[in-house]
Amino acid sequence: MQALKNDRLLRALLRQKVDLTPIWIMRQAGRYLPEYRATRERAGDFMTLCKTPELACEVTLQPLERFPLDAAILFSDILTIPDAMGLGLHFAQGEGPQFRKPVRSAADVQALGVPDPEQDLRYVMDAVRLIRRELNGQVPLIGFAGSPWTLATYMVEGSSSKDFGCVKCMMFDQPALMRQLLDVLARSVTAYLNAQIAAGVQAVMIFDTWGGVLSPRDYQEFSLRYMEQILGGLTRESEGRQVPVILFTKNGGQWLELIAQSGCDALGVDWTTNIGEARARVGDQVALQGNMDPSVLYASPARIRQEVTAILKDYGRSTGLVFNLGHGIHQRIDPDHVAVLVDAVHELSAPYHR
Amino acid sequence: MQALKNDRLLRALLRQKVDLTPIWIMRQAGRYLPEYRATRERAGDFMTLCKTPELACEVTLQPLERFPLDAAILFSDILTIPDAMGLGLHFAQGEGPQFRKPVRSAADVQALGVPDPEQDLRYVMDAVRLIRRELNGQVPLIGFAGSPWTLATYMVEGSSSKDFGCVKCMMFDQPALMRQLLDVLARSVTAYLNAQIAAGVQAVMIFDTWGGVLSPRDYQEFSLRYMEQILGGLTRESEGRQVPVILFTKNGGQWLELIAQSGCDALGVDWTTNIGEARARVGDQVALQGNMDPSVLYASPARIRQEVTAILKDYGRSTGLVFNLGHGIHQRIDPDHVAVLVDAVHELSAPYHR
Repeated sequence: MQALKNDRLLRALLRQKVDLTPIWIMRQAGRYLPEYRATRERAGDFMTLCKTPELACEVTLQPLERFPLDAAILFSDILTIPDAMGLGLHFAQGEGPQFRKPVRSAADVQALGVPDPEQDLRYVMDAVRLIRRELNGQVPLIGFAGSPWTLATYMVEGSSSKDFGCVKCMMFDQPALMRQLLDVLARSVTAYLNAQIAAGVQAVMIFDTWGGVLSPRDYQEFSLRYMEQILGGLTRESEGRQVPVILFTKNGGQWLELIAQSGCDALGVDWTTNIGEARARVGDQVALQGNMDPSVLYASPARIRQEVTAILKDYGRSTGLVFNLGHGIHQRIDPDHVAVLVDAVHELSAPYHR
Repeated sequence: MQALKNDRLLRALLRQKVDLTPIWIMRQAGRYLPEYRATRERAGDFMTLCKTPELACEVTLQPLERFPLDAAILFSDILTIPDAMGLGLHFAQGEGPQFRKPVRSAADVQALGVPDPEQDLRYVMDAVRLIRRELNGQVPLIGFAGSPWTLATYMVEGSSSKDFGCVKCMMFDQPALMRQLLDVLARSVTAYLNAQIAAGVQAVMIFDTWGGVLSPRDYQEFSLRYMEQILGGLTRESEGRQVPVILFTKNGGQWLELIAQSGCDALGVDWTTNIGEARARVGDQVALQGNMDPSVLYASPARIRQEVTAILKDYGRSTGLVFNLGHGIHQRIDPDHVAVLVDAVHELSAPYHR
């Protein structure tokens, strides 16, 4: 493998010294880019895009051709695992994800096995290998998976949900069954992320998109615990370097101290927490990744720079910050505003690293 | 006016001694009740239901006929104010609220005046008077309004929103204009709630449904500040009794200390914060209202009782708790489960008040 030319991301995630604050953007390969929309159109549908390594590679690299981002992130979807478990993932026109066979009964849970990543999710691993080759050491490649709880919400509800009635009812009334489901998911995510690491990803992120809809007690028992199980089984070194792990619970700002003790290297932080206060709360345990309100990108370039200035100042001097949005970029954002953001982070962060 | 037979709610909101923890339920007059659905059907559409005092009174009283709740809450909608401002509120079939004339420009904002409650929102005041008469002192009547920020989100977006792009863009790029909009809304809400109090409501609640989508800085500047403005102008005594004020910012668990300093009497707390920790954080400043996950009502009666037990235990002894859900009741909930909840709160809370 070619030596890594820009290792700011990996260093910052491990709280090592860097010259500039690194930045990447959640969903940086996405619908706000006309070239993404063109590839997606060519692919026909979203899952074909995910399942064709050449196309996944193409869209993964698109934002890097426009912006001097400090990382690439594998283009894929968190629902590849339940799809590989045989639940029949599909995306209806204008709708969110849906499963043909949602998980509702004990028999449904017992029928689930851990997918073999190199067999059942081969297209993901092939995409990782291809992207690494094409990246040629330019920036590191981030792999990812959904948290067990987040995957379970889609699998039990059968689709996106507003109130999570089905999955919470299973959690409340059949906690042992829910634990069985979360355990097979934790084992699946562990195998999946380890295979991504073996195939070449250099950092991994676990997206706990729906942990924030739980009470503190339920969050610890049904979401955080299974992310900790994954952390216990992950390969933490590859190609002679540490592989940092980022946990991100959306709307989990109240639980940062708990998440910081999980054994991860970095916390994703959404914009409802001040990044300086987050840092004070978790101390030196972990790096932080975040946390600009994605909607700031609707605003003027001057206002975007002002927000970057404020976040960098809130975080303060020294290492351990990876700049990102607090959630995925919205699809109606003007790509030129992303250029403003990336440049602002690099330019305005330099004084904090002298 | 008839003397109040059950004043547990008012006493608990002022942190005075009670015999049992009072309970009411956000959206207790709503679609989970077949009798509500029948009245709604008769009314034809939602706004007719809101605008016909006899029908609003009828549905307000329905849950009290089924359950020994400790309060009634006026049946209405937070969007009555922008409707009275002339924005043309309507509800399309299967859609959320929409405005025919959203607020987008400086001219749009400057055209807004403070509605005269007894003239432009007379149907609300008539409903309050009628409900008070029909309640006949059985339990207190709660009035309410949306927070300025929350109202502004609907007025600027023109409908419900996923990412709040329009309203946030106005906030980021035209903060002076946004403040002008929030100021006229704060003055309107103040006049509206004072008119409700004059008409007979005995406590008021401000619903800041969308304050939680802001960063901490923006929350303080664009949501909390205008709720404080309202608090400064509210009638705090009526009929020889204090009129308690409850503020509720959904997803505002990180800012409870700040909200507690606003001058309100009680905080609404959603289920993502442990109620015992919330109490420890705000101390003796305010009462708390909440905070069971509404989805627990999907679970079995035994599980519902278990959750009530846990919340009462977390809060602990002594006064200052009003039991409620952490958000509005879901429409698919079985009314029999609500009966279980109300009885459990009364039965299981007695030991904490001895």
